[in-house]
Amino acid sequence: MLPENHLWFTEYHAPGGMAQSWLLEAEKIDARRSPYQHIEIYQTASFGKLMAIDGCVMLTTRDNFLYHEMMTHPALFSHADPQHVAIIGGGDCGALLEVLKHATVQQVTQIDIDEQVTRLAEIHFPELTQSNDDARASLLFDDGLAWIRNAESNSLDVIIIDSTDPIGPAEGLFGPAFIADCYRALKPQGVIVQQSESPLIHQPLIKGIRGNMRAAGFGDLRTLGFPQPCYPSGWWSATLGSKGAGSLDEFRYDDAINKAFATLYYNADLHRGALAEPTFLRDGISD
Amino acid sequence: MLPENHLWFTEYHAPGGMAQSWLLEAEKIDARRSPYQHIEIYQTASFGKLMAIDGCVMLTTRDNFLYHEMMTHPALFSHADPQHVAIIGGGDCGALLEVLKHATVQQVTQIDIDEQVTRLAEIHFPELTQSNDDARASLLFDDGLAWIRNAESNSLDVIIIDSTDPIGPAEGLFGPAFIADCYRALKPQGVIVQQSESPLIHQPLIKGIRGNMRAAGFGDLRTLGFPQPCYPSGWWSATLGSKGAGSLDEFRYDDAINKAFATLYYNADLHRGALAEPTFLRDGISD
Repeated sequence: MLPENHLWFTEYHAPGGMAQSWLLEAEKIDARRSPYQHIEIYQTASFGKLMAIDGCVMLTTRDNFLYHEMMTHPALFSHADPQHVAIIGGGDCGALLEVLKHATVQQVTQIDIDEQVTRLAEIHFPELTQSNDDARASLLFDDGLAWIRNAESNSLDVIIIDSTDPIGPAEGLFGPAFIADCYRALKPQGVIVQQSESPLIHQPLIKGIRGNMRAAGFGDLRTLGFPQPCYPSGWWSATLGSKGAGSLDEFRYDDAINKAFATLYYNADLHRGALAEPTFLRDGISD
Repeated sequence: MLPENHLWFTEYHAPGGMAQSWLLEAEKIDARRSPYQHIEIYQTASFGKLMAIDGCVMLTTRDNFLYHEMMTHPALFSHADPQHVAIIGGGDCGALLEVLKHATVQQVTQIDIDEQVTRLAEIHFPELTQSNDDARASLLFDDGLAWIRNAESNSLDVIIIDSTDPIGPAEGLFGPAFIADCYRALKPQGVIVQQSESPLIHQPLIKGIRGNMRAAGFGDLRTLGFPQPCYPSGWWSATLGSKGAGSLDEFRYDDAINKAFATLYYNADLHRGALAEPTFLRDGISD
């Protein structure tokens, strides 16, 4: 058992038969109950602040760079000239921060249904929201499903689906109709990326996401794994799809080498490396 | 807190401020107290069996393939013709199983100080010990430090240091004298690989391992990260060093593509990809 003389935050992942706990410095330091979900903030001993939604860890100060960098830079460097980007979800603004590092980007629209996630991020993760007043960024607090459904056809270069787990408000983001709408909203060379959970414990979900993308018409698909200590199994993935005929292997490697901004995890060679899928995953998700 | 109506095995990683727990199907199913350590076996609900040594998870049925494949195949495919291999530690025999898949290998000597680890693995992880009676394999239960110190110079092609954490019996395996002895025991084109803990939470230790290898004379060094859900942070690493002048980038890619045996995680492209170090790690461990 956990030492009883300490405070802990524990996430119990029932289907995986696992739980993960963080030592805390104090009881919960902030919380809001929005119309959609229950958002809590904790001060951990070693991972900085921790945001949980409905009991599931969304991010910590220490390790969110892994997820946010891998949800953005591979997709943006897979597009020849990403100018117009939409982020569905992403309320903590960490993905938005990374997208805005790209000088090609002219407009990023972020659509998260829950304004309270962003309001709490502004207070507790200000390093992630520091670019929110960039003139290229628009933050909408609205239904991402409807926004994409109503988006102009052939209007977006990159769509990033940075959602919570496929239960609760995010469930529709994992359905085929939404992905078909994304396909329609993307320009002919557009790129989609969706957070696709753990390669080890959510393989059927990854296969479902890829099936949705394939059915919508996306050509090359690739599931990029990356470490993410604060999520169940410590291993997470982003699934990319290209609307054009090009291979996702042909990303802008030289631009990634010479990028004018700093990253902690991502680099051009790591991107190339992450395109190689583990054998069991490649076999398990083959179409 | 964890649901109290269930049984759990919890590993509390104090320096990381984290704990990980596995749902159990039953109380502890086996245990032995050897002269060196306390070995326990649990039946988990979702990860198969779990072996813990002195309270730290060593392996589970479900995810040990990640560690064992990444501790062996990159090193063996980095050597032009690996014939003579030593494994220091490795008592669960999972690394030995992978090494013996290589047809070039003529002799593998495994030196683990604690015979009870192997005896329990034979009972509870028979899939890992199934090649132990291969005529090419010798299992010694002895002090790996002394064995390497007494090994003939220029006698080994690959040394695999598959140890527990750097406290207790394995402490000396993380010291410079042992690594210098490994260097001497390797042939001129020899390759060393050492398990080097978590890129996120053990960076000083990785830097120390690389410093030992550099000081011993190893030329090219590379720290390969891989997911390992059952270890703290879910992210682990293997640090490789080459005694020869060649780059670890120049591994036998075509042989890895055409290998005659199955792997679950490893493949040639994944090996190439794992050679790309994350930015923060590359910067943090630069010599």
